[in-house]
Amino acid sequence: MNYLAKVYVTLKPTVNDPQGLTIKGGLLSLGFGSVQEVRAGKYMEIRLNGASLNEAKEQLQAMCHQLLANPVIEDYRFEVEEIRG
Amino acid sequence: MNYLAKVYVTLKPTVNDPQGLTIKGGLLSLGFGSVQEVRAGKYMEIRLNGASLNEAKEQLQAMCHQLLANPVIEDYRFEVEEIRG
Repeated sequence: MNYLAKVYVTLKPTVNDPQGLTIKGGLLSLGFGSVQEVRAGKYMEIRLNGASLNEAKEQLQAMCHQLLANPVIEDYRFEVEEIRG
Repeated sequence: MNYLAKVYVTLKPTVNDPQGLTIKGGLLSLGFGSVQEVRAGKYMEIRLNGASLNEAKEQLQAMCHQLLANPVIEDYRFEVEEIRG
């Protein structure tokens, strides 16, 4: 079976986010005065195969923990769906 | 009204993604042989205020086009929801 996973990695709320502050500054200087806060994160789409949806989820959990996110300062979540082909 | 927007920016399918290839290489070398493809993107959470949901969406559309994404090589999409406080 083939699966498509969408992985979202965000900084924990207490961690400083200079990239987000820079984006906010850019938006304000472009005239978007309605912006209150920006938090920057990462997004990844991963195609993988596996015997079952549960196996794919277990694999993704391990990938996030070992490589895709830094569990000390980042949170992660993912969605997995089966795809054809 | 206060709104929370989740913005996803991804490279267009035809654009090379060296960051995604590097992540894929890292996952394979960690033993995740089930990985077929990785595409890397950006994820942002933006808090903003506005008179209505439609106005917030228009603002976000302009932000994405002007700063958050490069429309030549990137696609973007966003979700907006109203929040309290």
